[in-house]
Amino acid sequence: MSEQKTEPAARAAASVDGERLWRRLVELSRHGGFGERGVNRQAFSAEDLAARRTLLEWAAEAGLEARTDPAGNLFLRWTPPGAESGAAAVLSGSHVDSQPLGGRFDGAYGVLAGLEALLAVKAAALPLRRPLEVVAWSNEEGSRFQPGLTGSGWVTGKLDLETIRAGLDATGVTCGEALDSFLAGTPGLPQRPREEPIRAYLEAHIEQGPLLEAEGLLAAAVDTVQGIKWFEVVVSGRAAHAGTTPIAHRADAFVTAAALAAELRALALDAEDTTRFTIGRFEVVPGSPNTVPEKVLFTIDLRHPDAGRLAALAEAFAETCAAAERAGPCGVSIRVTSDAPPIAFDPALVQRIEDKLELLGLPRFRMRSGAGHDAMLLAAGTPTAMVFIACEAGVSHNPQEYATPEAVTAGARVLAATLAELGLEEG
Amino acid sequence: MSEQKTEPAARAAASVDGERLWRRLVELSRHGGFGERGVNRQAFSAEDLAARRTLLEWAAEAGLEARTDPAGNLFLRWTPPGAESGAAAVLSGSHVDSQPLGGRFDGAYGVLAGLEALLAVKAAALPLRRPLEVVAWSNEEGSRFQPGLTGSGWVTGKLDLETIRAGLDATGVTCGEALDSFLAGTPGLPQRPREEPIRAYLEAHIEQGPLLEAEGLLAAAVDTVQGIKWFEVVVSGRAAHAGTTPIAHRADAFVTAAALAAELRALALDAEDTTRFTIGRFEVVPGSPNTVPEKVLFTIDLRHPDAGRLAALAEAFAETCAAAERAGPCGVSIRVTSDAPPIAFDPALVQRIEDKLELLGLPRFRMRSGAGHDAMLLAAGTPTAMVFIACEAGVSHNPQEYATPEAVTAGARVLAATLAELGLEEG
Repeated sequence: MSEQKTEPAARAAASVDGERLWRRLVELSRHGGFGERGVNRQAFSAEDLAARRTLLEWAAEAGLEARTDPAGNLFLRWTPPGAESGAAAVLSGSHVDSQPLGGRFDGAYGVLAGLEALLAVKAAALPLRRPLEVVAWSNEEGSRFQPGLTGSGWVTGKLDLETIRAGLDATGVTCGEALDSFLAGTPGLPQRPREEPIRAYLEAHIEQGPLLEAEGLLAAAVDTVQGIKWFEVVVSGRAAHAGTTPIAHRADAFVTAAALAAELRALALDAEDTTRFTIGRFEVVPGSPNTVPEKVLFTIDLRHPDAGRLAALAEAFAETCAAAERAGPCGVSIRVTSDAPPIAFDPALVQRIEDKLELLGLPRFRMRSGAGHDAMLLAAGTPTAMVFIACEAGVSHNPQEYATPEAVTAGARVLAATLAELGLEEG
Repeated sequence: MSEQKTEPAARAAASVDGERLWRRLVELSRHGGFGERGVNRQAFSAEDLAARRTLLEWAAEAGLEARTDPAGNLFLRWTPPGAESGAAAVLSGSHVDSQPLGGRFDGAYGVLAGLEALLAVKAAALPLRRPLEVVAWSNEEGSRFQPGLTGSGWVTGKLDLETIRAGLDATGVTCGEALDSFLAGTPGLPQRPREEPIRAYLEAHIEQGPLLEAEGLLAAAVDTVQGIKWFEVVVSGRAAHAGTTPIAHRADAFVTAAALAAELRALALDAEDTTRFTIGRFEVVPGSPNTVPEKVLFTIDLRHPDAGRLAALAEAFAETCAAAERAGPCGVSIRVTSDAPPIAFDPALVQRIEDKLELLGLPRFRMRSGAGHDAMLLAAGTPTAMVFIACEAGVSHNPQEYATPEAVTAGARVLAATLAELGLEEG
């Protein structure tokens, strides 16, 4: 890395105002805030609109150009004085909608760190050749309207508006109705064309896992999003009286399912603790204390960065279930209910982020994302990578979600340094 | 066994009309009947009343004296011409209320086999010295009004009327209201005094388990009702993101609970297949496929004929749960939620029933009851035993419940022979 490049990046990072960023995280969390630090700010709700208005105020203060699109995304653009005409922007952001029982950081951190990084680069008065832009993707969570990831899904052409607008919330409101009234709440915004090119996409996010905290690190580059396969296993036995039926005469769906669950888990676990194997749902029918269970349905959430390993495990699971059925006394079936392949982020961009960690005196570290993010969809057509910051005990999707001011600032600095470097490059 | 005793018993058994008994089982099942052979005849319902009226018609036909009591029991008494004045009756019966998704045999068989046996003894014109009486205990099942076993509970002094009448069904009707209108449906019946002595109580019932069918037997003497302990185990972990949380950082309540369940089960099982261990309820919280479970609550239904063995297992369970908590990473608690000690039936009466099996050319066989029955309560103050008949695949509390006409007849013959012998004896 040349001297010319390193210095502007370090200047941009140094311009990050960590206190302002922390204040804004707290301020934004008032929209939908509950309890000590919980946030309920579901997509296209009044709280989501209030958060958007706050973002627009901050953008106006900084002289950024705000735009939207039919999917309800918000873009805040800064075009540097010396930008080349028609140069594609470097985009950074995340989402501000939350889970119903969410926290202050999931999504909101990526948007506000992106904004802080942009302001820092702007303040550093560097001769950028291309615009920087912050995005708040709409409806990432999918907790109110399914599917989620609709804002980035529309921009990347993965989802059409019809599919997005058809979503229905629990009270019978369609996503289309909610989106229309949400957009009407911030009238007069220019439209960003769907096809407008993006030079690169960077997303900062809390890790939502305990690894960085355990390693004593503040931030890391994210190089992959692991693949996710969901399975549903059904074990069919025979209901019987718990008092009268000898063990030898039972076809106890619980006993078979619990043993099978342990066997499948043992197949998946590895010494490196790379594979994620979770049985989160395990339903016993009829669920009466004095009836031998007739049926168990359980789910497996299996994740791994390597598609080959996921495929091999899926095959091993199928074989193990078939063997369990042959061994008797219960029927066993397994099927894949969802399948998302692993995503690799842009290697050069990941490398740049690691370089920035080093530039800022932090250890180089790269890791994978366990969860899905908007960046996953962007990666298909745009050089993309993510920055993770440490979060307390890995807790997320929970009012207890927390990241320290140090980690919050460190992530924004890495982002600012990377944005500055990308903005300085030729088209 | 003397010649004088054996011969009358055999004559009584030979007088059993198996076809009439089968016809009556089918006829009674029309009250509350559904589907091919299901029965829904809950306590004090219109269907229960209709069944009672049918029983009263059959009693009137046979010249039996019908009585009732404040708990809603029905007694049908035959006093032989040569009965000693004030001699206590030999009582036989069961109940005619059913589970909501019940069958033709559970309960109804014991009442109709008792009636058929009484008619057979009567037809054999034996010089009985004491009355024979058939009883239909009220609300055995407890599926509409809790608790169950209220008819026998009241007669044996285990339950007072206030407790019984306080029960509330799902529609808000009290047991007292339903009982009053039920009793009003068969007006003018004399009251049986609660304290009236009972010489002996015999209850015939389908096994509700698969043992007799597996052994190729039609009927057996029942010598004990096993003890029942219920436990509730709670495993407390920590909810976490299924995608981002390494296995080493998890406190997965499902994994701990499933392993603990297997360990507790292994403690309970024995080579003789005597202990009944059932986990029928196993609830995983929050039950979301991509969240590591925070909590599991599961129940254990533990049964064994020996109180010492039950106590030892309860202690071993508590130690194992404490060890699981010490091993971490989850909290584990266990508590006993219900505790019914084992009941031994009258040894002489059990012996008599085995003798009658032999008399009728059936193999001698004694077994324990896995389920609770009215006989369990009678046993505390009255010489009591039960006769079980084989039922198909051990299925009960289910519309598919079935017993063959051969088993149905065999059980009534054993009952008739035993009633005859007891009726012939001095006071």
